[in-house]
Amino acid sequence: MIIVMQAGATKDQIQQVEETLISLGFKTHPIYGEVKTVIGAIGDKRLLNTQLISTLPGVEDIVPIMKPYKLVSKELKQTKTTIQIEDITIGGREIVIMAGPCAVENEQVFYETARQVKAAGAKILRGGAYKPRTSPYSFQGLEEEGLKMLATARQETGLKIVTEVVDTRDVETVAKYADILQIGARNMQNFRLLKEAGASGKPILLKRGLSATIEEWLMAAEYIISSGNPNIMLCERGIRTFETATRNTIDISAIPVVQELSHLPIIVDPSHATGTWKYVDPLAKAAVAAGADGLLIEVHNDPARALCDGPQSLRPDKFAQLVEELKAVAAAVDRKI
Amino acid sequence: MIIVMQAGATKDQIQQVEETLISLGFKTHPIYGEVKTVIGAIGDKRLLNTQLISTLPGVEDIVPIMKPYKLVSKELKQTKTTIQIEDITIGGREIVIMAGPCAVENEQVFYETARQVKAAGAKILRGGAYKPRTSPYSFQGLEEEGLKMLATARQETGLKIVTEVVDTRDVETVAKYADILQIGARNMQNFRLLKEAGASGKPILLKRGLSATIEEWLMAAEYIISSGNPNIMLCERGIRTFETATRNTIDISAIPVVQELSHLPIIVDPSHATGTWKYVDPLAKAAVAAGADGLLIEVHNDPARALCDGPQSLRPDKFAQLVEELKAVAAAVDRKI
Amino acid sequence: MIIVMQAGATKDQIQQVEETLISLGFKTHPIYGEVKTVIGAIGDKRLLNTQLISTLPGVEDIVPIMKPYKLVSKELKQTKTTIQIEDITIGGREIVIMAGPCAVENEQVFYETARQVKAAGAKILRGGAYKPRTSPYSFQGLEEEGLKMLATARQETGLKIVTEVVDTRDVETVAKYADILQIGARNMQNFRLLKEAGASGKPILLKRGLSATIEEWLMAAEYIISSGNPNIMLCERGIRTFETATRNTIDISAIPVVQELSHLPIIVDPSHATGTWKYVDPLAKAAVAAGADGLLIEVHNDPARALCDGPQSLRPDKFAQLVEELKAVAAAVDRKI
Amino acid sequence: MIIVMQAGATKDQIQQVEETLISLGFKTHPIYGEVKTVIGAIGDKRLLNTQLISTLPGVEDIVPIMKPYKLVSKELKQTKTTIQIEDITIGGREIVIMAGPCAVENEQVFYETARQVKAAGAKILRGGAYKPRTSPYSFQGLEEEGLKMLATARQETGLKIVTEVVDTRDVETVAKYADILQIGARNMQNFRLLKEAGASGKPILLKRGLSATIEEWLMAAEYIISSGNPNIMLCERGIRTFETATRNTIDISAIPVVQELSHLPIIVDPSHATGTWKYVDPLAKAAVAAGADGLLIEVHNDPARALCDGPQSLRPDKFAQLVEELKAVAAAVDRKI
Repeated sequence: MIIVMQAGATKDQIQQVEETLISLGFKTHPIYGEVKTVIGAIGDKRLLNTQLISTLPGVEDIVPIMKPYKLVSKELKQTKTTIQIEDITIGGREIVIMAGPCAVENEQVFYETARQVKAAGAKILRGGAYKPRTSPYSFQGLEEEGLKMLATARQETGLKIVTEVVDTRDVETVAKYADILQIGARNMQNFRLLKEAGASGKPILLKRGLSATIEEWLMAAEYIISSGNPNIMLCERGIRTFETATRNTIDISAIPVVQELSHLPIIVDPSHATGTWKYVDPLAKAAVAAGADGLLIEVHNDPARALCDGPQSLRPDKFAQLVEELKAVAAAVDRKI
Repeated sequence: MIIVMQAGATKDQIQQVEETLISLGFKTHPIYGEVKTVIGAIGDKRLLNTQLISTLPGVEDIVPIMKPYKLVSKELKQTKTTIQIEDITIGGREIVIMAGPCAVENEQVFYETARQVKAAGAKILRGGAYKPRTSPYSFQGLEEEGLKMLATARQETGLKIVTEVVDTRDVETVAKYADILQIGARNMQNFRLLKEAGASGKPILLKRGLSATIEEWLMAAEYIISSGNPNIMLCERGIRTFETATRNTIDISAIPVVQELSHLPIIVDPSHATGTWKYVDPLAKAAVAAGADGLLIEVHNDPARALCDGPQSLRPDKFAQLVEELKAVAAAVDRKI
Repeated sequence: MIIVMQAGATKDQIQQVEETLISLGFKTHPIYGEVKTVIGAIGDKRLLNTQLISTLPGVEDIVPIMKPYKLVSKELKQTKTTIQIEDITIGGREIVIMAGPCAVENEQVFYETARQVKAAGAKILRGGAYKPRTSPYSFQGLEEEGLKMLATARQETGLKIVTEVVDTRDVETVAKYADILQIGARNMQNFRLLKEAGASGKPILLKRGLSATIEEWLMAAEYIISSGNPNIMLCERGIRTFETATRNTIDISAIPVVQELSHLPIIVDPSHATGTWKYVDPLAKAAVAAGADGLLIEVHNDPARALCDGPQSLRPDKFAQLVEELKAVAAAVDRKI
Repeated sequence: MIIVMQAGATKDQIQQVEETLISLGFKTHPIYGEVKTVIGAIGDKRLLNTQLISTLPGVEDIVPIMKPYKLVSKELKQTKTTIQIEDITIGGREIVIMAGPCAVENEQVFYETARQVKAAGAKILRGGAYKPRTSPYSFQGLEEEGLKMLATARQETGLKIVTEVVDTRDVETVAKYADILQIGARNMQNFRLLKEAGASGKPILLKRGLSATIEEWLMAAEYIISSGNPNIMLCERGIRTFETATRNTIDISAIPVVQELSHLPIIVDPSHATGTWKYVDPLAKAAVAAGADGLLIEVHNDPARALCDGPQSLRPDKFAQLVEELKAVAAAVDRKI
């Protein structure tokens, strides 16, 4: 940690900062520049709210040197984390396709969609039973009934299941049915839910918050991993910007950035990122080309009748064609679908 | 709702959209322009996921005409909502000051701070017992022990209490002690928590999410009000932008915008908005001048030793002086502190 | 254009809006909903500042139906624009690589870099002679001397030249040397420069402004095309968001959005978008996979000695390897490099 | 400047960075932490593109210690700059009101508006003769004819004149008529225009760019001041965020931030910041309460007929009433109007 003193800081002020740091267990190394003095502080800043020092007189700024996260960091563990769900490996050479409707609604439509995404090459079935909806007047999900339909679809197709959990009180129930628990974008900093979901022992798919920095996203993953669960996939799903032509702005550069900072696999959700099915195809290809470890794609048999996010869902035939084309892109970057 | 057809939409496509709308219970009014056709659809769009129509061929865009919220809207109720907590009125001519430390930590320091903010003119005491912290390694709050300290401080000073609830499982406990339940920015779209807190019957202080539009914020309030609880204060606490000189960018224009769209009172938190105590003074004055109904200000006896957000806390003497100066600003805009 | 009246708008207010529209040459079509009235106005809104109506009493909102741009729009011209510069076609099946250093600095280093990017497969050489620098104390470019070095490099290598123009007074000089005039991000709404550059008759590479919406970017292109010059390439180079891990956030979804709205070719600059050479490789691949018509990549022989943007420059050997790998990605999406 | 080495940086890498710094004229002070080494570098970083070092192997990050601007900084000059235009002082205890229509259009309407804003208490008349318009099909201003009307209005009313210049070629002409040259938001980083306007010797009103950080804004002012002209007013006019309820988001916290970092006066433009006349009143008051040195407000006799930005213009009577109310707010914060 580096403490930058103001241009006119006095000797006494510098001394007070040093003494405070020493009393907190740090070793101090002042550097006297021509205009400003900076003080290097060696020690474990995780013990300390690093900004406290900033209230001392004469302090201009505090510059952290260590990353705030530890267990999710590549500095700690350099080999990529792979997550094994029976015969499926997430984080390996193969890019894993997760697909299905936004919400589990009609039983027969759902099973039919499940069979179609399986046939097209998906390994994991998505479908929401608990839906976080912006409006209290929108469809909120079938809850446990939906989870049962997910389990039936798994049994029929052999697909694994990913589904969202939105309340600490539901974690146990959802974990009974699902292979992967999804933490949605709006809950990325619902820290109690992170801990509870982490404690379930199930692999977690952690969506990036709408305005979360990559550092905050990794800190959210740190909550899960520090509760004893290392099986975390990060999922980029678009961030909020000023641009309104797409619902969100997909941050494709998050893929290489996450891969440089962390050992966790990264999945991309082009459906929620754009909100429009027409853009799913080029962005899924971009994600694969940039090195994503998986894709999460909305597919619906009858988008116009979907109770949730119809406009961003691909029809099964479009999806099957996309998977074919993605195979070529994956091969071009030495990956496999 | 207005459906805009693409420039080259065919008669058949226009007819299909009309038929679909009619089958959903709408009346349709097409307008044939020189280049594009638009179709006005009359009916209650709240029954419908308005975007479904957008998947029909030839549709370019859907323009909602009605606001998505209803009960919080000024269209429904034109008189300002006032919230009565014993002798304190929020939303009236008087601007209510809420103050106290970010987190309840040391007992004696907390009671001392409570007495000081009371003496300075605050009516409501803030203090976190459950803290949503970005890092799992940061202080997470004293939980129920903290709530008891809040209750004791209330007894000793007569101040009312506002404190945050972060988990649906804690709502009952927090409601037992607090006068106002705070929903934090990170939980603004934790819809289960909104409903549960709303159902407690306690007044709710609903902070704006870091990247929430005013419309989404009002939709979050709609969750609370539609669960039967009309006593909601909205709290602006800064939004996330590209600017890094302040922790967040306080959106002062949210004050008049909320007042135009909704009947709910609006509170401003200049401490979290900026992250720096030096900027609290000018921004508190700006909030009052722009018409805020209350202020939420962090005050701490010893900011350098605070376990949470020390750098943004005012010392009690600075706070007392600020309240004095705010009285003049309030008077200038025909309000009272 | 649709005028939305407030919930409580009176008959007189509605009539006044209709009369005003009619006096401005519009035909009006009111639709009376249960709560609100909307008025469809048919006519050429380009003749009108569409927001004027919004000052009339009772008006809540104005919704434009037509896009504000016309000549750059796909509604007007559905076939993709291709730009021919001697034997190079931009906007065709082949993806065009533009490469070179940020600024033209040292003569021998520049010629050497030019030969290397040519050997690697670039068709167009980039290099700035006039540099818009954030700091007045940074290197501002060699100006006409730099242009001469660009021309020499063209003669020696056969590469075409793209270089930036920053002042209306320099357009004539730059156009004398360059094959393509670049308008930088900071000048995207320097409307005088757009007109002057357009009037030069040279093809224009128009970078997207740091916080420009796609619509504003197309409006900037409309300035150029309406001054008689249809040879415009749009260049995505990252937008400003809250994320700080990369210098800007590359908006890959801008590629399909632009291709849906406009007939103009789109180029991607992954170097400026990220600010870090390490991320150029995955993002260049993402851009190609998503359908970009070209890439603009910074290459420098000795990034550590570059007077401008060294950290985002690839060394020539890395660049050559990238181009090889991009060929496979291009083939996977049925394009060619 | 602090160089942060990667966790696994080798001794050789650290040595190479030190040697490079020494060869560039810096003194180096390495601090060896438990995990990472940081190197303090003392010397004038303005001589150096600070990021160059970042391309050396083993370097993780570069942390600048000195601000990139110098002459506009409060570190250099602690007393507030005041700008004297005959009997008007900008930057003193009195808050200066600048008002008038967005664009100079109809002669008689303009003179009438000028007399009205004068009567209401404005000291400076605004009015655009050269308009930077998003659309090439919008009114672009009356150019020199408009300047002449401004000069006539000055003669008739005694008001001083501020007007925008958009092209380096027009600086001389505009400076012949205007008392203050305005650099618009879109030209904040049009560095040639900054220099040329600065060289005119006239006081400059420098609007903040739509997505400019405060640091970039001060760097733009540094361009002007380093060309020999210290008479600069900064003008906050809203920044671009995700919020769409207002045209831009006014950054009121920019007022105290600028006042802490710089000695230059700061003006606020609530009209452009919000785009809606209804919000001008509360935001003008907020700006004054937060410490602004002046206001720039759009006033128009007949907003519905304005060729430019009608919806954000106040009618003269509303403006006169606002100025009266602002006097009370100014007095409350010990200022004067």
